[in-house]
Amino acid sequence: MAVGKRILVVGGVAAGPSAASKAARTNPDAHVTLFELTDTISYGICEIPFFLAGEVRQEDLVVHTPASLGKEKGVEVRTLQLVESISTARRTIVVREVATGRVYEERFDRLVLATGARPRPLNLAGEQARNVFPVRSYDGACALRRYLETEHPRNVVIVGGGYIGIEMAEALRSRECEVTVLERRNEILHDLDAPARAFVADILARRGVRLVAGAQVVALPVDASQRVSHVLTPDGSYPADLVIVATGVIPATELAGTAGIRLGTRGGILVDQRMQTSVDGIFAAGDCCEYRDIVTRKWVYAPLATNANRAGWVAGQNAAGGRAAFPGVLRSTALRVFDGEVARTGLTAEEARDAGLHVVAETITSRSRVPVMPGSAPLSVSLTAEHETGRILGGTLWGTEGAVLRSHALAVALHQGMTLEQFQKTDFAYAPPFSPLWDPLLIAANALEKLRTHGTRP
Amino acid sequence: MAVGKRILVVGGVAAGPSAASKAARTNPDAHVTLFELTDTISYGICEIPFFLAGEVRQEDLVVHTPASLGKEKGVEVRTLQLVESISTARRTIVVREVATGRVYEERFDRLVLATGARPRPLNLAGEQARNVFPVRSYDGACALRRYLETEHPRNVVIVGGGYIGIEMAEALRSRECEVTVLERRNEILHDLDAPARAFVADILARRGVRLVAGAQVVALPVDASQRVSHVLTPDGSYPADLVIVATGVIPATELAGTAGIRLGTRGGILVDQRMQTSVDGIFAAGDCCEYRDIVTRKWVYAPLATNANRAGWVAGQNAAGGRAAFPGVLRSTALRVFDGEVARTGLTAEEARDAGLHVVAETITSRSRVPVMPGSAPLSVSLTAEHETGRILGGTLWGTEGAVLRSHALAVALHQGMTLEQFQKTDFAYAPPFSPLWDPLLIAANALEKLRTHGTRP
Repeated sequence: MAVGKRILVVGGVAAGPSAASKAARTNPDAHVTLFELTDTISYGICEIPFFLAGEVRQEDLVVHTPASLGKEKGVEVRTLQLVESISTARRTIVVREVATGRVYEERFDRLVLATGARPRPLNLAGEQARNVFPVRSYDGACALRRYLETEHPRNVVIVGGGYIGIEMAEALRSRECEVTVLERRNEILHDLDAPARAFVADILARRGVRLVAGAQVVALPVDASQRVSHVLTPDGSYPADLVIVATGVIPATELAGTAGIRLGTRGGILVDQRMQTSVDGIFAAGDCCEYRDIVTRKWVYAPLATNANRAGWVAGQNAAGGRAAFPGVLRSTALRVFDGEVARTGLTAEEARDAGLHVVAETITSRSRVPVMPGSAPLSVSLTAEHETGRILGGTLWGTEGAVLRSHALAVALHQGMTLEQFQKTDFAYAPPFSPLWDPLLIAANALEKLRTHGTRP
Repeated sequence: MAVGKRILVVGGVAAGPSAASKAARTNPDAHVTLFELTDTISYGICEIPFFLAGEVRQEDLVVHTPASLGKEKGVEVRTLQLVESISTARRTIVVREVATGRVYEERFDRLVLATGARPRPLNLAGEQARNVFPVRSYDGACALRRYLETEHPRNVVIVGGGYIGIEMAEALRSRECEVTVLERRNEILHDLDAPARAFVADILARRGVRLVAGAQVVALPVDASQRVSHVLTPDGSYPADLVIVATGVIPATELAGTAGIRLGTRGGILVDQRMQTSVDGIFAAGDCCEYRDIVTRKWVYAPLATNANRAGWVAGQNAAGGRAAFPGVLRSTALRVFDGEVARTGLTAEEARDAGLHVVAETITSRSRVPVMPGSAPLSVSLTAEHETGRILGGTLWGTEGAVLRSHALAVALHQGMTLEQFQKTDFAYAPPFSPLWDPLLIAANALEKLRTHGTRP
């Protein structure tokens, strides 16, 4: 297969610019063009809660302008272009120029789809009211910040108790709002271990954030000023000057689906290790894709910026004739919540059981530093392993310091399929201001290995 | 080979108590006895600089008393006992009771030697003066703290610019002393990469610590009050109210050597993966041993508390009839120096070249958090890999936050023999308050892989 010279990338933000830059770098002879519907091609979507809290300035959200991506990375950028369809037979895309309505066709040798995701709608009247905001786009974030600074909302209702919902709760609490989080499931942060969820819930309660679990929003009544005044659930009514919808995202894959590219059960594009779709020469990366879970080898939908960047990089390299493999995802995630931090990587015990694995799991609480050192704080580690083999399946860490960066070691161990017995002998750097002599990760591995082999707790 | 019922352990502090506890746990039918020359069997030797700085209280230095080790771990403890010799033929040790002078013999089925190390002497008259202190023992640390609090020394000279010397410099600077560090080599912290050394040297200079490299101490003149008044080098004379000797340690292996147990070129006991010495049934662990370097598989002397504890644990388990293997050491070390932190694991580029490897190395400077986040600070990573294969050989990290805990991930990668290409695709947990989207570890791996494969810098 000849190396593609004409590489088109559809979509900005994270995977698209990553793929385009890497393609241009991999094959300097290729002509790489990036198409984006909005006029912002690359910004820090994960920084939006911190921008809304006032910790990050608006101009600092932008990572690359169309000009800088062109100049620094050698990518032609076309903004305000809607890619309407793909002809897999003719190897072309049909593009509509938003400003003029002009429709034109572009030929490709290789195509990278990075069409991203869109907020999961509530499908309720009132969702389009002027005080209801999803948290998904640069423009939306700027509009929300303007709203905060001009309207000074007092009562804020956040619909959704996932990572974004919790980060938004902190951001708005820091603006002195009264914040209520409504979560339709029975718990917030459902992909964390139960004690980690309790840790976060406790911090939120102490900081005056009201959490309501099992709260399915059923109506968003709109008043005469075209604003939602209350958020209604079967069990209560929550007054709202502002409603944030943080109910997650769904892959934006109409373009791929219509072109006959194979989608998964979650609606994401299915890709091989090279990030190639079911159509030869068409690659995909980012929130429009499903990925293989490294631990279970099953398909998962994990719309995270880290995955988008790593996968975009692999897609871009392969689109330009390189040979790169994407190993899959661990769904590693980190969360700061006020003075607390939480990280997870791999599977929780519940997820491992759901995947049909026979598991052992243990939670230990150690310290972030040698216990007698100033600043030493509790640090908890929850580990899950396969019962028969001792292979580590996942872990969650939480505390007020040292949780997130410690999870890095566990991520490497999961990529390598390490057992508890191998992991528990790791030679970690140590000094009293940074960890106990036996790092909490090792204490957790030792405890779980004991439980696994002897059925006893240390 | 029958499981030993009578297990004797020689030496306290770290490896000895670790081995004794693990042996008693592994075989509850065994009788485990620990012999220690002093009356302190287990204390936090790494906390001594922080104790001297006033950050840690004296009572908090003690980890286990003889009574607590007996009660909690089921180990018989005999303090103030000097083990004088081993008969490998008769399977006995000869012990002298310090208080009475009584000499007695004890039979063993298994013996664990944890005789530790002693300060490397300067071999100069004046070394025993009452204002000259090594940094090695609990008693010594307590005596030094009393000296500081009663004599209020102003001019302090620290001989030795290794980890302990630097930690002591900070401790004494925090007590408002004028601190001079004399290092006989041409640089402090010789086992760090040059830019990491420069980072530490810069912090020390800003904090008013005077560093003198290439300064070989040749005399310690003693005044009428039996104190050293000056420290003399060929190039200068340094007034001293207090002299700290931190020139490293040498293995204390006379007992083993006299018994015919095989020693290495650095004077340490040589052990196999089970921590067994050249004599069947006699194990060793801790600062009296040499270990295999995981990266080079060569013998190294790495007297660190982490190694002592991990190796003691393996020795104790095997002495009690268990089956455990010690994978070797990475010489992972961490250092806090005022507001800076440094960690290394595996080989530096220089060490790798000395080991005969064909290496590529690269240093990058990224940030500890997303650059635009409050608190984001420079974070540097220096990585070394094998040129032909891309196998990671080692790394050093430094900055004001996030360096030490990030080194944990690298340690796991080194244990696993990972290549840059494997490592650069790790799915690390990410949120803007904890790291850039591409973690500095990944940026470093990407940069070095580019250099390795294309000979270019990114």
